[in-house]
Amino acid sequence: MKDIVHRVGIKAPIAKVYDALSTIEGLARWWTTTTTGSSRIGGDVAFRFHTETGDEIGGFDMEVLELVPEQKVRWRVKAGPAEWVGTDIEFLLSRQDDYTIVMFGHRKWREEVEFMAHCSTKWATFLLSLRDLVETGKGRPAPHDLRIGNWH
Amino acid sequence: MKDIVHRVGIKAPIAKVYDALSTIEGLARWWTTTTTGSSRIGGDVAFRFHTETGDEIGGFDMEVLELVPEQKVRWRVKAGPAEWVGTDIEFLLSRQDDYTIVMFGHRKWREEVEFMAHCSTKWATFLLSLRDLVETGKGRPAPHDLRIGNWH
Repeated sequence: MKDIVHRVGIKAPIAKVYDALSTIEGLARWWTTTTTGSSRIGGDVAFRFHTETGDEIGGFDMEVLELVPEQKVRWRVKAGPAEWVGTDIEFLLSRQDDYTIVMFGHRKWREEVEFMAHCSTKWATFLLSLRDLVETGKGRPAPHDLRIGNWH
Repeated sequence: MKDIVHRVGIKAPIAKVYDALSTIEGLARWWTTTTTGSSRIGGDVAFRFHTETGDEIGGFDMEVLELVPEQKVRWRVKAGPAEWVGTDIEFLLSRQDDYTIVMFGHRKWREEVEFMAHCSTKWATFLLSLRDLVETGKGRPAPHDLRIGNWH
């Protein structure tokens, strides 16, 4: 099994970061504007991605496995690209200095495919979108996300 | 062993990307301005990091293991933080659509420590600095790099 890991520090209270990770409204403001469903434990959250002109280009359905206020959010991918199905995504929160630290893991990839490397870089840019949202009120959710190559 | 992987696409000829990865001058323009040494096979490249006010805060010495023009650059870390020593860093280049694709790997971490997650995110930002350098002529090498948290 292969894992993508990242770490960002956000100059904001842990409650604000947890809110952006555990509510539909929060997720829609840093990952993808088309986020729907239930973000409670056992619920399914549907993330969809569109081009800037509105054509749907894919998405993921996640089951919420764990929610520990101000500490942890964990999802399992139920539907989406084959490489993602069955993988887990986690956000662990803690405080260091004046920062809320987000330890991110996208775990249990079956193989280190080229798409995994793309997703690793893309996750970094979305975590910085999360940081910008919480620190400044403005993230860069899809379809306004930072392009990193021919795969978007 | 744990690996960091990333993938970015750069709208520029493969030779320009290879040049930025295989010369001291190129490396200094996207990773850290204080880059010295020999970038030939068997040479050692010294990367040093400073604060914006000029205090040295650390660095790495790399031996150049492989150089295949327009295809591959690979280094081994000889000195630096304990977690980095003995790890390998590789850049594999190819063409897809109108892009030069950089497949990046920082391989053979002994453990998935918090510092590895920080370095994963940081590598993403430096690879986007490489992209910006090659596409626009201006990268964001340290000490002008994008800060991602309390560890810089």
